Amino acid sequence: MIEVYAFATPNSVKVPIALEELGLPYELRTVNVRKGEQKEEAFVTLNPNGKVPVLLDDGLVLTESAAILVHLAEKTGKLLPSDSEARARVFEQLFFHASALSPAFGNAGFFKRSSPEPQPLAEARFTTEAERILGLLDTKLAEQAFMAGEAFTIADIAHFGWLWRRQFPGLTLDERPHLSRWYETVADRPAVQRAISRVEALVEIKGPAA
Amino acid sequence: MIEVYAFATPNSVKVPIALEELGLPYELRTVNVRKGEQKEEAFVTLNPNGKVPVLLDDGLVLTESAAILVHLAEKTGKLLPSDSEARARVFEQLFFHASALSPAFGNAGFFKRSSPEPQPLAEARFTTEAERILGLLDTKLAEQAFMAGEAFTIADIAHFGWLWRRQFPGLTLDERPHLSRWYETVADRPAVQRAISRVEALVEIKGPAA
Repeated sequence: MIEVYAFATPNSVKVPIALEELGLPYELRTVNVRKGEQKEEAFVTLNPNGKVPVLLDDGLVLTESAAILVHLAEKTGKLLPSDSEARARVFEQLFFHASALSPAFGNAGFFKRSSPEPQPLAEARFTTEAERILGLLDTKLAEQAFMAGEAFTIADIAHFGWLWRRQFPGLTLDERPHLSRWYETVADRPAVQRAISRVEALVEIKGPAA
Repeated sequence: MIEVYAFATPNSVKVPIALEELGLPYELRTVNVRKGEQKEEAFVTLNPNGKVPVLLDDGLVLTESAAILVHLAEKTGKLLPSDSEARARVFEQLFFHASALSPAFGNAGFFKRSSPEPQPLAEARFTTEAERILGLLDTKLAEQAFMAGEAFTIADIAHFGWLWRRQFPGLTLDERPHLSRWYETVADRPAVQRAISRVEALVEIKGPAA
């Protein structure tokens, strides 16, 4: 049985979404990041980087949510096309998410909510960058149904994680009609709803989590 | 003929390194980021995100340096193993580079050198994170030859880009003996040296570039 160490976080939720979409059974193991459990010795043995999610699959211990998405897609032959150009578009979005959207959202949220003292230029830098990225995605989705083309892929799952938690950096989808349409389409998928229910059940006190 | 739009930057250099390692001929097209050419209309048509590098390969226009590495490795069947676990380790490092090392190095350098006013907590945040990441890589390389195991892969090429430009965020490999050994091993590869010479020749005035 696949095990996933996770919490109700932007990166964690991607893995149960993929597993639900692929029809693979799994067990969730709670790592309460609000209590700092991701830095405790038992967990750091699994992931020295001290981050959720972690996948355990038949002896493989794998970190990095997008690497887990690629592994699950390749294992099943689904959600990642084999055609060279279509496949390149998926990887392009996975790395755009990892290197641009994810740090912009995470740092915008940190400087807005968690910095011990205000750092206004830093907060503005990451908020402006996050808004720029939302604009790029909205423009892309004016011309295609999903992030990497006309098919739902792991690129959509990656982007959905942080867009689902967009309140943390204080962002909205207002005035992003194409991105809003995409978000609602993905959020309406039964597999996505099942995954969200399962990760939200890991949180003892419900509420927005980063 | 493959074309690469690039400059002497941490992300750009990865692509010529891969092409030299794979023995694929290519032409470099200069995008002078010191003059802001990556934001000019001609280039933004190729990459709306306004970033180098961009690969042109037989009609495919591809952005995101790590997505380009995956594309070139899959095209040639080299530098990315087919075995499931070995392959997962490469993707784990590619995404660790994209989501952790690259933004930490880039933002540490920005707040150290380019911020219009000091943001000391922001500078400390990213410098501390960059040092933490160097420590994780040093520990990993105490037990294996390369970033994703015993073989040189595209994961090494990804990490090399920013480690080559570590002066920008003011970082060193001092007291990182295993990472230093890895760096020298990679820097000594003839393909890596050829690629560095070619991207450095794009810079009219020589010097460290981010």
